[in-house]
Amino acid sequence: MPSSGNSYKVRLLLAYLGIPYTHIACEEASPELARAKADGHAPQGKLPALHLADGTVLVESNAILWFLAQQTAWIPSDPLDQSRMLGWMFFEQNRHEPVVAGRASLRCYESRRAQATPARLAQLLEQGHAALAILDDGLAARDWLVGDAPSLADIALYAYTHSAGSLGGFDMARFPNIAAWCARVAALQGHIELDQIP
Amino acid sequence: MPSSGNSYKVRLLLAYLGIPYTHIACEEASPELARAKADGHAPQGKLPALHLADGTVLVESNAILWFLAQQTAWIPSDPLDQSRMLGWMFFEQNRHEPVVAGRASLRCYESRRAQATPARLAQLLEQGHAALAILDDGLAARDWLVGDAPSLADIALYAYTHSAGSLGGFDMARFPNIAAWCARVAALQGHIELDQIP
Repeated sequence: MPSSGNSYKVRLLLAYLGIPYTHIACEEASPELARAKADGHAPQGKLPALHLADGTVLVESNAILWFLAQQTAWIPSDPLDQSRMLGWMFFEQNRHEPVVAGRASLRCYESRRAQATPARLAQLLEQGHAALAILDDGLAARDWLVGDAPSLADIALYAYTHSAGSLGGFDMARFPNIAAWCARVAALQGHIELDQIP
Repeated sequence: MPSSGNSYKVRLLLAYLGIPYTHIACEEASPELARAKADGHAPQGKLPALHLADGTVLVESNAILWFLAQQTAWIPSDPLDQSRMLGWMFFEQNRHEPVVAGRASLRCYESRRAQATPARLAQLLEQGHAALAILDDGLAARDWLVGDAPSLADIALYAYTHSAGSLGGFDMARFPNIAAWCARVAALQGHIELDQIP
């Protein structure tokens, strides 16, 4: 699913870490995904799913990030900073992704056009701007969301934020801290774009 | 906010760990919460907020659990099990809490009655049953969500699940694995009920 920010998170971290892998594309609501769900290759029908060499399968994008970043600088060692990092990642799954990615999917996927009523789009616009304002505040006077270096929180929030204007139709001119931070993330060693698949 | 499952999660873990603390009640959308947001006692206006003795404030219920459970058996040491545990906690914030707690709040709070249309309640019922079915499947043939012992995942999911029938109006008779697991959680040493405040 190249257009999925949740999938992009995992590919971004793998790119930063320089870890080789095989990417298997799978569309939402496809027969392939139904088969992958049935045979345990995509438990709960969730994507992305990480498959390890020993057959282990792990789902939930942010949990996959946690597993891949073990023993790297992408997870701060201080327990309080770890908790703050996870706090941003829970915020992402609870208040950011459902509205920021949700609005983008209503605008971009033909199959969701029926749900894309003006009232629903307006509600998601307001909720998305509120979530993005929290992120922008969190980046005031700091380069990265936690501590002095990029962490998994930056990857998790970048994935859907960097395209919130183009795909979601959000007014990103309101959020100058986000704009500067997106540029910093995009300048990281090994960075790849959303549509770059190995 | 005694009725908040997100607040209950934190009080549950503190009770299991036997850590003393002071509980300060604060209602949603109250003048007290607006003041707490403005003075940094509840950043983003989020509850619960953990205040440490040195003035540090931490928000996001599941991130607070992570901080409080450091160096305890509530966080498995194996990285894969840690990732699975966090995976359930991200699932909780993304697919479970918004619908299971969301429907309960529409039914229970007078201030939300206007949003509690039959169509919205029906949609949340269907989405909630789908999320609860995933949880029930995850508990098939196992006592706890991850490994052989209770972890933060069990606390995070128990908080809104144990009252999903009474408050949310979900048909819990469909989910026998959840019922047995709820009984196991309620039997843990130190367990407290949702409305038990120290």
